[in-house]
Amino acid sequence: MTMNYQGDPLDLERHFVGFTEAATPRVVVDARVLDANIAAMQDRVGGAAALHPHIKTHKSIAIARRQIAAGASGITASRPNEAAVFIRAGIGPVTIAYPLVEPRQVAALLRLGAEHGIGLRLICDSEEGLDSLVAGSRMAGIPASVFLKVDVGLGRVGVDPQSQRGVALAERIAGCELELLGLISHAGQAYGADGRDGIEKIARQELAILHGFRDRLTAGGIAVPIISIGSTPTICAHAGFEGIAELRPGNYVFFDLTAIRLGIAHRSDLSLAVAATVIACNDTHAIIDAGSKTLSSDLGPHGTRAGKGYGEAWVVGRDAPLPVDRLSEEHGFVAHAGMRPAIGSKLLVLPNHACPVANLAASLLLLGDRTTEEVRVDARNGELHL
Amino acid sequence: MTMNYQGDPLDLERHFVGFTEAATPRVVVDARVLDANIAAMQDRVGGAAALHPHIKTHKSIAIARRQIAAGASGITASRPNEAAVFIRAGIGPVTIAYPLVEPRQVAALLRLGAEHGIGLRLICDSEEGLDSLVAGSRMAGIPASVFLKVDVGLGRVGVDPQSQRGVALAERIAGCELELLGLISHAGQAYGADGRDGIEKIARQELAILHGFRDRLTAGGIAVPIISIGSTPTICAHAGFEGIAELRPGNYVFFDLTAIRLGIAHRSDLSLAVAATVIACNDTHAIIDAGSKTLSSDLGPHGTRAGKGYGEAWVVGRDAPLPVDRLSEEHGFVAHAGMRPAIGSKLLVLPNHACPVANLAASLLLLGDRTTEEVRVDARNGELHL
Repeated sequence: MTMNYQGDPLDLERHFVGFTEAATPRVVVDARVLDANIAAMQDRVGGAAALHPHIKTHKSIAIARRQIAAGASGITASRPNEAAVFIRAGIGPVTIAYPLVEPRQVAALLRLGAEHGIGLRLICDSEEGLDSLVAGSRMAGIPASVFLKVDVGLGRVGVDPQSQRGVALAERIAGCELELLGLISHAGQAYGADGRDGIEKIARQELAILHGFRDRLTAGGIAVPIISIGSTPTICAHAGFEGIAELRPGNYVFFDLTAIRLGIAHRSDLSLAVAATVIACNDTHAIIDAGSKTLSSDLGPHGTRAGKGYGEAWVVGRDAPLPVDRLSEEHGFVAHAGMRPAIGSKLLVLPNHACPVANLAASLLLLGDRTTEEVRVDARNGELHL
Repeated sequence: MTMNYQGDPLDLERHFVGFTEAATPRVVVDARVLDANIAAMQDRVGGAAALHPHIKTHKSIAIARRQIAAGASGITASRPNEAAVFIRAGIGPVTIAYPLVEPRQVAALLRLGAEHGIGLRLICDSEEGLDSLVAGSRMAGIPASVFLKVDVGLGRVGVDPQSQRGVALAERIAGCELELLGLISHAGQAYGADGRDGIEKIARQELAILHGFRDRLTAGGIAVPIISIGSTPTICAHAGFEGIAELRPGNYVFFDLTAIRLGIAHRSDLSLAVAATVIACNDTHAIIDAGSKTLSSDLGPHGTRAGKGYGEAWVVGRDAPLPVDRLSEEHGFVAHAGMRPAIGSKLLVLPNHACPVANLAASLLLLGDRTTEEVRVDARNGELHL
């Protein structure tokens, strides 16, 4: 019986080899695919732009080091505590793609960066935010370097590039004691696109918006040294990076079912999955030991609810996945369609969205060629202290 | 302007006092309400049954100690590593409401319990599971005490109480070297009920099913010393515990928007919330620093998708909440309906489901009467090792 699923099958003879040996539930990473994804992104970017990958996807110092070794020029973080972990590990420069609005936090991060010799790059999209950056810089005695964040359609953070307010804020940053690095954006709405064509359109719009805004600013005498963009879909679907100095994709190290749905990855490109064990079985569902506290309840990134279920469960020897219909906190409901997997047998679940899955784990088990390596999720959430 | 929301308002003059002082995002707990919830559940149960609260909700040794001090007779855990944390802390007996199917895991837990003088109670719903429990008991040289898990309508784990297979499994447990403790169930489908009447109906059905099954077993000469049930909704909505020796509610320590929707709690009963800061604001939404990695993407427990959004955001001085429409990983989209909160201002978000929120935090900030206390989420997921 063939299930209705999109794309190529997962070949468990060659992919995630050894997952059945893991104590479950366990987030496993195919190390060969991970390294291939890191190398492929570096190749895709070529010399055209510098790569500053977003480490929110893995939050792991070891994986960030693999990205740096492959040619990344720095990293991107979101939460301040996330940034602090990488600064302390000596990995940078760190772009915090998250508007800081508390002067003490700004000062603490600037001091931490200086102490470890790691450059820090902040973002700003409001007058209040800029006031906080200036106040924090004065407290630390270190002027912050700042990107102006531009909303390119996600409707989240960023100035409206058509607005006079955006220009006025750029002028204020350029005219104050801080350094204006340039413009930064995130076209996260690409996750809601309907395949590659839709993503490519969003990617082209993003570039047009940023180029237009840069031209308005430079015409007004404001220098825009760097344009930084970043989202895995737009970078994978669109090869043109004209005028773009930096790229900040995150998810590409792992990919997930969302990437398959968007047409930017095959199953053979997915490097992260959850190894689980069948702990019970009823007439309709095999029950596995991975629920929402392992797989998250994400149906897709940015609140998209495109996922029909909570993942695909693959069983060794079967050429089609079983759908994960529902999740309790520690149980997953895998529809077995009459093909009951044995209690105690192992499954591999591909998640809708890899990033929250890594964040729910204390460590990832890297499956290599006849070796395994435990890699800590060093900056997983919850710790607040810088 | 009054928003359309269900139930009584949250009084931030008396509730979660001090949350605006927290570094955000921060999971905060109103200590007075927490203790009141713990005491109220103990009162509700009275002497009629023993309380073995499920600690998956808070995963905190300190909060479990408060439950024990208030009269709880033991605790319930789900994942083995969760159980291990509490065994090591000397808190028990521990009921692992999760079928273990690996003999080595069973043996490790039995040994750990014996080492710390903590009784362990396991569950079983299959022949294969029983084989594992027997094998693990032999490895440890300690016979496991076992509940037979009964499916009372959730369709997850448990034998069909109408089936001959259920009776046969009970006979096998009773006849082997293990101790048959009795019957155990979880009516988690109550989370999908439409208010108190629906829950009460489910609670009555659960009791009828369990009593009927017990009667069949005892008529066949199998002793059923204990019947253990547990879900916060059924226990809150139904006061009759005839023939029930043990209760295992979890969520009641915190409650959440799901409990309000179900009619089993008022906002004044909610003890857990997320303190957040407005970091940006656009025409439609205030953007806060709490996203799916803080609030989870849960729309409700057990895969129920009843939540319209991802929480309610309450602002000091306003008598109605603003809806959290969408979540990115580290950003929440709060619809401000034209009433833009100031950038840098603090909000308090009530979540759909408290349990995954606590699991995403390293610690909880208990807000007491002029004092705060940081309480670790000792057993939060990710750590596998016993």
